[in-house]
Amino acid sequence: MRIHVQNPAGDAVFAITPEHWSAAVARNPEPGRLDVSFASDDAGFASAIRHAEVLLTTTKIVKERFPAGALPGLAPRLRVIACNSAGLDRLAPFDWLPREITLLNNRGTHAGKAGEFALMSLLMLASHIPHFATAQRAERWEPRFGSVLAGRTVCIVGLGTLGGAAAHHARAFGMRVLGVRASPAPHPDCDEVLATTSLDTILPRAEFLLLACPLTPATQGLIDRRRLGLLPPGAKVVNMARGAVWDQDAVCDALEAGHLAGCVTDVTVPEPLPSGHRLWRTPGLLVVPHVSSDDPNTYTDRTLDILLANLVAMRDGRPLPNRVDPDRGY
Amino acid sequence: MRIHVQNPAGDAVFAITPEHWSAAVARNPEPGRLDVSFASDDAGFASAIRHAEVLLTTTKIVKERFPAGALPGLAPRLRVIACNSAGLDRLAPFDWLPREITLLNNRGTHAGKAGEFALMSLLMLASHIPHFATAQRAERWEPRFGSVLAGRTVCIVGLGTLGGAAAHHARAFGMRVLGVRASPAPHPDCDEVLATTSLDTILPRAEFLLLACPLTPATQGLIDRRRLGLLPPGAKVVNMARGAVWDQDAVCDALEAGHLAGCVTDVTVPEPLPSGHRLWRTPGLLVVPHVSSDDPNTYTDRTLDILLANLVAMRDGRPLPNRVDPDRGY
Repeated sequence: MRIHVQNPAGDAVFAITPEHWSAAVARNPEPGRLDVSFASDDAGFASAIRHAEVLLTTTKIVKERFPAGALPGLAPRLRVIACNSAGLDRLAPFDWLPREITLLNNRGTHAGKAGEFALMSLLMLASHIPHFATAQRAERWEPRFGSVLAGRTVCIVGLGTLGGAAAHHARAFGMRVLGVRASPAPHPDCDEVLATTSLDTILPRAEFLLLACPLTPATQGLIDRRRLGLLPPGAKVVNMARGAVWDQDAVCDALEAGHLAGCVTDVTVPEPLPSGHRLWRTPGLLVVPHVSSDDPNTYTDRTLDILLANLVAMRDGRPLPNRVDPDRGY
Repeated sequence: MRIHVQNPAGDAVFAITPEHWSAAVARNPEPGRLDVSFASDDAGFASAIRHAEVLLTTTKIVKERFPAGALPGLAPRLRVIACNSAGLDRLAPFDWLPREITLLNNRGTHAGKAGEFALMSLLMLASHIPHFATAQRAERWEPRFGSVLAGRTVCIVGLGTLGGAAAHHARAFGMRVLGVRASPAPHPDCDEVLATTSLDTILPRAEFLLLACPLTPATQGLIDRRRLGLLPPGAKVVNMARGAVWDQDAVCDALEAGHLAGCVTDVTVPEPLPSGHRLWRTPGLLVVPHVSSDDPNTYTDRTLDILLANLVAMRDGRPLPNRVDPDRGY
């Protein structure tokens, strides 16, 4: 099987190297004979993609290289596109993707780091850290005392890798965890799970709201101005999903009005957030530049483990654990 | 036994009320008949202190009310001063205190909240949050990726309530925990414990350094410019002790020079930190206004439980768990 790895030019942190590959092959079951090539430039891509059966790369590169209709001519033998991201919303709509090509993400990679980031964000909001960061900008000493997490309620929207890891830590610290996802199947780290359609009934109980769902047509704008108004006064919000899942301006308004008491967001619209944007200056809002879930020490290794496991499953005719359904978007 | 509670005027968060007292007496063993009075003004203090055998109040009030030599005349029957703080450094030197009077602190009150604050600070430093707060002030999107805590090394100076709680959480997240305290007795949540006199040998291994010791003559200026230089490049520092435990200017210099990669401090010199102070603007340094360890929902209840347990021990002739040794300072 011919595999091509196309790295972004100039990314030293998440580049996938031949050393990563050798180590991954050594620690995983073999899915068969694998010929792998690596490139980070145009020429390397152009020559390798003509023969590649599997492409491992970033969503940004997929988006740039395969405008609608281009793929069959450029990559006649391609059967699998594996992205080193969990959220593939950048690739929607999926009109560029021939349906016989399997699209894989790397969900599962992010659990350790994302779980710690989620717990950190909850602890920061409980301790009023975004408020103190705002006060520090104005050089003002403004003590506010905060209680421990135990006994308080968090609503987690999305119970995939990120939301599940968040629920696990929140539960371990004694929080009451209310989960929300497309179908209300129980989750081992949630006290209750409700369907997204019941979101309105759960928001008034959410002292903390943590967003960890994929961005899809169903979640775009999910937390709008009206739903922010359903949160109890003084509620605190974490966004580890995508900026388009909430109404960003309404969040800023709610912080300025004091309806929300604090916010940590790892995602913004747009990214990178430009200088002069309102979000930088909204009181009680801490902007983190989209790094919540990526551990540079383990990210590439986990991504390759996941790819190899999926290739073994494909060889054996089993369902692929990381297949993305283009109709669903995740 | 006559007990007087002197509250600070105008503190609604930590005032001790008759309701707190009744609840505490109901849930604790009785140390004997107790007559309790409450005041927050001068007149209330003046009349009650003449008869009080136990005074429960803040270190600030003790400091103001009992200048050296004043106590015997003002409070002829006083046997116990109980402070609703763990650190009594504000009362040093203890020349104002007749040696027949027992001084109690409320150590033990802070474990839950302080442990969460310590863990939060370690997670924040691992995720470069102080750096992002600095970048936000300049409205700059500057991603830096950070790894999970597991496998990394933290050196915790002081293994009392705060340091012990910090060690517990750090260990639970897979960190290697090096403890430092006056005597190198083992600690259940530390991989190693060294005496403070061995601090120089441990600092080069401390990717994270967390200060949680009392401020005493032995710890004043402990983390000076030379010792900051012994930390590995890129080290991260948390101060939950007192600002005088480190050389604050040297910390700022080390952050500006990039030797330290980040800092969260709950304590400053002076407090409150005035506008215009260098600390507010030091890059990678987050200033928290001395709130790390006080949980407003449990603080007063725990303080009263501790006082009553000490009064029972006194009645029974047992050692008092919260007695402060003025020679040692804690």
